[in-house]
Amino acid sequence: MNERTKFILDEKEIPTHWYNIQADLPEPLPPDLHPATGKPITPDDLAPLFPMELIKQEVSTERWIEIPEEVRDIYKLWRPTTLYRAHRLEKLLDTPAKIFYKYEGSSPPGSHKPNTAVAQAYYNKQEGVKRIATETGAGQWGSSLAFGCATFDMECKVYMVGISFQQKPYRRIMMETWGATCVPSPSPDTKVGRDMLAKWPDCPGSLGLAISEAVEDAVSRDDTHYALGSVLNHVLLHQSVIGLETKKTMEQAGVYPDIIVGCIGGGSNFAGMYLPFLKDKIDGTKPDLRIINVEPASCPTLTKGPYAYDFGDNAGLTPLLKMYTLGHNFIPPPIHAGGLRYHGMAPIICHVYKAGLVEAMAVPQLSTFAAGITFARTEGIISAPEPCHAIKVVIDEALKCKESGESKTILLAHSGHGHVDMASYDAYLHGKLQDYDLPDDLLQESLAALPQVD
Amino acid sequence: MNERTKFILDEKEIPTHWYNIQADLPEPLPPDLHPATGKPITPDDLAPLFPMELIKQEVSTERWIEIPEEVRDIYKLWRPTTLYRAHRLEKLLDTPAKIFYKYEGSSPPGSHKPNTAVAQAYYNKQEGVKRIATETGAGQWGSSLAFGCATFDMECKVYMVGISFQQKPYRRIMMETWGATCVPSPSPDTKVGRDMLAKWPDCPGSLGLAISEAVEDAVSRDDTHYALGSVLNHVLLHQSVIGLETKKTMEQAGVYPDIIVGCIGGGSNFAGMYLPFLKDKIDGTKPDLRIINVEPASCPTLTKGPYAYDFGDNAGLTPLLKMYTLGHNFIPPPIHAGGLRYHGMAPIICHVYKAGLVEAMAVPQLSTFAAGITFARTEGIISAPEPCHAIKVVIDEALKCKESGESKTILLAHSGHGHVDMASYDAYLHGKLQDYDLPDDLLQESLAALPQVD
Repeated sequence: MNERTKFILDEKEIPTHWYNIQADLPEPLPPDLHPATGKPITPDDLAPLFPMELIKQEVSTERWIEIPEEVRDIYKLWRPTTLYRAHRLEKLLDTPAKIFYKYEGSSPPGSHKPNTAVAQAYYNKQEGVKRIATETGAGQWGSSLAFGCATFDMECKVYMVGISFQQKPYRRIMMETWGATCVPSPSPDTKVGRDMLAKWPDCPGSLGLAISEAVEDAVSRDDTHYALGSVLNHVLLHQSVIGLETKKTMEQAGVYPDIIVGCIGGGSNFAGMYLPFLKDKIDGTKPDLRIINVEPASCPTLTKGPYAYDFGDNAGLTPLLKMYTLGHNFIPPPIHAGGLRYHGMAPIICHVYKAGLVEAMAVPQLSTFAAGITFARTEGIISAPEPCHAIKVVIDEALKCKESGESKTILLAHSGHGHVDMASYDAYLHGKLQDYDLPDDLLQESLAALPQVD
Repeated sequence: MNERTKFILDEKEIPTHWYNIQADLPEPLPPDLHPATGKPITPDDLAPLFPMELIKQEVSTERWIEIPEEVRDIYKLWRPTTLYRAHRLEKLLDTPAKIFYKYEGSSPPGSHKPNTAVAQAYYNKQEGVKRIATETGAGQWGSSLAFGCATFDMECKVYMVGISFQQKPYRRIMMETWGATCVPSPSPDTKVGRDMLAKWPDCPGSLGLAISEAVEDAVSRDDTHYALGSVLNHVLLHQSVIGLETKKTMEQAGVYPDIIVGCIGGGSNFAGMYLPFLKDKIDGTKPDLRIINVEPASCPTLTKGPYAYDFGDNAGLTPLLKMYTLGHNFIPPPIHAGGLRYHGMAPIICHVYKAGLVEAMAVPQLSTFAAGITFARTEGIISAPEPCHAIKVVIDEALKCKESGESKTILLAHSGHGHVDMASYDAYLHGKLQDYDLPDDLLQESLAALPQVD
C-alpha cells in the first residue's frame, strides 16, 4: 500500500481549452436536421434557444476552444477533480490490474453536470440573457444548472417531471437553495402545461412534456434561453475537461490506460472523459486502446438500437439527430439509474461507435448495485446508480486480468456520488430490486415510429 | 480573482502524529469520575468498553501520538482535505477580510466523523475485537463508524434512535451499504430495549436509551466493544488531523488566522481544528489569536450552562465528566442541527474555555440557514445545518472587518455537506422553520438534577 492513492493537479493546471473531437474525426458528423423541413438546421433556427457562441461550438471543427477565464474561476471551486488509484478494490479482487478512477462527485451538486452548466450560464450571461429555462427528470441536471446560474447571478426556471418532483424532493430543494425556481411539470406556467392539466389534472408528467414547457418558456420570453444537459456536441465539448485533466495527471504519473470504462445515458460524462484519449487512437498513437461504453440492459441504445435520424425528445420538438436510438417514444423500464434512461445517445458517441473506434456493453441492474456495494466497502465512496454500471464492468475486466495474469491499466470515469440516491440502495439491500427484460415487440413498436428521413 | 482558491497538501503530508493538547495545558484536566463511586475512573473500569490503546490515549500527556500506518492508509481515501479561500463570499460581502475554510465534507460519509471512526476501528481490531456496537441519533456517527468498520472488515451494530430511524432513512441505508446492521432503538436485541418495548411498544427512543442498548450489547459479548463519536479526549485527539493539516497548509501559504470559527455539539470537529493552533496561544507565540466556539441559541452549553460534573448521556451510565452542561436530562428544542443538540461538551473544550483561552457565542437557527444559503450561492457547497452555525459567525466577523477596514484572516472549520439534510433547507426556504426561546425555568429544572459530587 505504499504506492500513491490520489493524483491531484494544481488548480493552475485546469485546462485552458476544451478539446473538440470534431477536428479529428475520420469522417465529419452527419448534420442535425430541422424537425419540420428535414433540411440541415441553421444557426438562425437555434438562435431563439441558445446563445450564438454555443451554436458555433455545436458545429465548430476547431480542435481547441478556449475556456473563458470566468468559467475557469468557477471551475476552481471543485476542479481539478481527483484521480484515485483503487488500491483497496484491487486487493479485494486480487487482480494484477491497476484500477484508476476520476471522481466528479466532489462538485457542489455531486456530479459532472456543472462542467457544462457553468459554461452555458456564462455564454448566456455574456449575450445579455438574464434567465434560463430547462427541464429535469430526477433533478441532477436541474440542480447543476441552478448552481451554474447562481454563480453568474442569473435566474433559473426548472420544469421538473411531476412524479419526480413529488417523489424526489432533495434535488428540488437543492435547486431552490441555489436560488432557482422549480415547478412540477405539467405546470400552469405554460400553455402546453395548462392544456395538459385541463385534460388530465393528475398527469404525472414526462421528460418530453417538461422539455416542451421549458422550450415554450424560452421562446416566449426575450430575456430567456433554453439549456440542455447532455447529448449535444457543445455539452460533450465542455465535459472534455474531465478527460484532459485525467490525461495530464496520468502523464505525470507515467501511465496510460489500456481500457477506459464509463456509463452512458446521453453520453456527456463518459465522452468528456474519453474523447481526449480517443484522439490518440484515431491518430494511430494508441491503436490498442479499448473504450467501453456501458449502458443498462433495459435501455440498450448502442447495443440494440439502429443508427437512424430521430428526435432527441419524446415530444418530437428537437432537431433530428443521427444516432443509435430505441425510438423517441420508447419508455425504459423504471431502473434507478435515471440518468441512463434515455432512448438516444450523443451523436458524437454514435458516430465513433459506428466507426468501430469504441465498444459498447449492456449490464443488468442487480449486478450494478452489487458492484456499487463492493466499491463502497473498499474505496469508501457510495456511488450514484449510474456509475455503478461502469464499476460492474471495471470489476469484470479486472477479474479477467486475474485469469490471464495481465497487469492492465483500467480507467473508470466516475460521474458522481449516491448520497441523494440512497433509496435505490435500500431497495437493493432489501431484495426489492429486479432486472428487466426488454420485450422485443415493445422495441419494434417503438422503432416503427422512427421519423422518415430521406 | 487571480489568487489561489484551493490549498491542497500532498498525501505524503498527512500528519504522522496526532497532537495531544494535554501535554500543553496550563493546568491538567480534572479526572473523570466513576458514576457509582464518584472516584476517579480507572483503566480497568473502562476495559469492557474500549481497547487499552484508546484508554491510554484518553489520559496520555504525550504531546505527539503516532498515527498507525494502517490508519493513514485509510485516511488517504479522502485526506488531506482541501483548504479553500472563499473569494466569492468575500466579494459578495465586500470585505477586506480573508476567509479560509477547511472542508471535511469530502470524506465518504460527508463529514469529519471518520477521522476517529477509522482510528477506533483499527485499535479495536488490533486487540482482537471483531465487532463494535454504538448508538446514533440522526445517523452521522453511525454511518461513519459503519464505514470505519468496513475498512477493517469488522462487524458493526448501530442502535439508532427510533424516531430518526423512521424519519431519516438515508443515513441508515448508508450504514447498511457499508455492511453494518442498524436497528431502531428501543430494539428487542437487548434487555433494556425489551423492557422498554414491553412498557411502551411505540416508544420513539432517545439517545440515552440507544447508548444503554449499545453499552449492554458491548459488555454482554466478548467479541464486542463500544465506541463514542465525540466528547472524549481520544476522539478530539484523532480529530487533530484537521488542525494539523490546516496549520501546515497555511504555513506553506504564508498566512496565520486571526480568528478561528467552528460549531460545537460534542466539540470534536472544532477542537480537532483549533487545538493545534491553541498551542501557539498557550506558549505565547500567538497571544491575540481568537477562537470562537459557536453553539445554537437553543442549546447554549458554554454560554448558559454551569461548569460542573455531569453524565455524558441522558441515562446516567457514563463516567461523570467535568464540563459545561445544561443537565443530562435537558432535551434541546428540535433544531435541525442534530449534531449540536447535546447537553454537555467535550471536557477539553470546557477546560480551555474556563481558562479564558477561547470564546463562545450562541446563534439562533434562522440566521444560520440564511448564512448557509449565502454560502451555497457563492461558494457552491450546500453545508450541513451544523457548520451553518459557524458560517453565520464568519459572515458577521467579515462584516465587522468591512466596518473597521481591517483585513483579518478568518478560518472556518467546515464539518460537512448537507446533501442528506435537504429537508431542513426546504423547511427554511418555505417559512416553516422557527427560532426557539430557551425557557429559564426549563433550564433550572434540568440543572437541579445535576449529580452531587464532592
